[in-house]
Amino acid sequence: GEAAAAMKTGAVLSDVGAVKGAVVADVAALAPEGVHFVPGHPIAGTEKSGPDAGFPTLFEGRWCILTPLPEKGAEYDAAAEKLAEFWRLLGSTVEVMTPERHDLVLAITSHLPHLIAYNICATAHDMETVTDGEVVKFSAAGFRDFTRIAASDPTMWRDVFLNNRDAVLEALGRFEDDLTALRKAIRNGDGQTLFDLFTHSRGIRQSILDAGQDTTAPNFGRDKPKG
Amino acid sequence: GEAAAAMKTGAVLSDVGAVKGAVVADVAALAPEGVHFVPGHPIAGTEKSGPDAGFPTLFEGRWCILTPLPEKGAEYDAAAEKLAEFWRLLGSTVEVMTPERHDLVLAITSHLPHLIAYNICATAHDMETVTDGEVVKFSAAGFRDFTRIAASDPTMWRDVFLNNRDAVLEALGRFEDDLTALRKAIRNGDGQTLFDLFTHSRGIRQSILDAGQDTTAPNFGRDKPKG
Repeated sequence: GEAAAAMKTGAVLSDVGAVKGAVVADVAALAPEGVHFVPGHPIAGTEKSGPDAGFPTLFEGRWCILTPLPEKGAEYDAAAEKLAEFWRLLGSTVEVMTPERHDLVLAITSHLPHLIAYNICATAHDMETVTDGEVVKFSAAGFRDFTRIAASDPTMWRDVFLNNRDAVLEALGRFEDDLTALRKAIRNGDGQTLFDLFTHSRGIRQSILDAGQDTTAPNFGRDKPKG
Repeated sequence: GEAAAAMKTGAVLSDVGAVKGAVVADVAALAPEGVHFVPGHPIAGTEKSGPDAGFPTLFEGRWCILTPLPEKGAEYDAAAEKLAEFWRLLGSTVEVMTPERHDLVLAITSHLPHLIAYNICATAHDMETVTDGEVVKFSAAGFRDFTRIAASDPTMWRDVFLNNRDAVLEALGRFEDDLTALRKAIRNGDGQTLFDLFTHSRGIRQSILDAGQDTTAPNFGRDKPKG
């Protein structure tokens, strides 16, 4: 996810960032006797990192994914439930899944979007027909939306892409296939295909708004008059 | 741009949306005697369309691009300056350029971002390994940022891509080249290339913030506690 909360209690550990199968195996082997390792992280946060980036309502109405280890016994299950309750008390809804499913889901909802955002920043910088100054001045035309998540911590994101390589490359391959189709529609002047695709995207946005996962205020409310 | 204001006075006309060379030529031919056609539009707006989507500070601190016709005489120049002053009174800064330059600049700052946003919505929907419900629930991991501009008016965006085809295909080609390089870095486990690219993107974001073209509040301020 974009950000994660690190927390440690006597009985429960939660990891930070991408829950890769390999990470889970590595860390689980290091958990001392009597300590139950329950991997997971919230789907919440901002482009800022560290404790100072937190605020009281950070996890409210957001989802938290836990990927408890299988067949570890009743004591482990109780620890996992304790952790789930902790997240619920913070206002989150808990979803349990396998690490493999987590990696697939996050590849499309988080890792691919970040990759695309980083990439379009590179493209905008490299276009020698358009200056960086022009890109900055006219960024309110759409580009600036991408730069927010492209400002996320470079070290964390390097590691995400190195550790979730297979799922990211799969999602990226699909994205590139779709982009090829879109490019052909533009080249061929196929307005109907463009219109249908663009209309469908509105529905996805509406679903996210209906689910309370984004603000309904236009422009994320950021350009509205103050007060 | 994302949105545009249509306005007509006795002496000055401003177009809506993409200022394509062909559009400029077509409309200029229709301007009646004594009416000066000065193409241009603001780089401002939201994913919503129509008069009800407006608000008093919509154009404050934003740029407005004008592409006046060349060598039309002193009366025309006075009309163009009158229009520029109108935009300045609304709080905008006016930039004058040719229609061709406008199309290049908007291709990278507006059209490509919209195309990418529409495309990732299609990819997320088509991934049969991940359900639409999961995409919606966990969209706060990054995906939701893209859905805002992908909710823009389908008819307008169809026409933008059909009318600014060459510049869009050029920007898209660059984007695809950059994406290929990024894919190779991930496949080869080239962490340094990833880190350098991600670090550079932070600089672009900072330039946009420094220029007052986005809010400095983390997460666009949308998840902050109310009041």
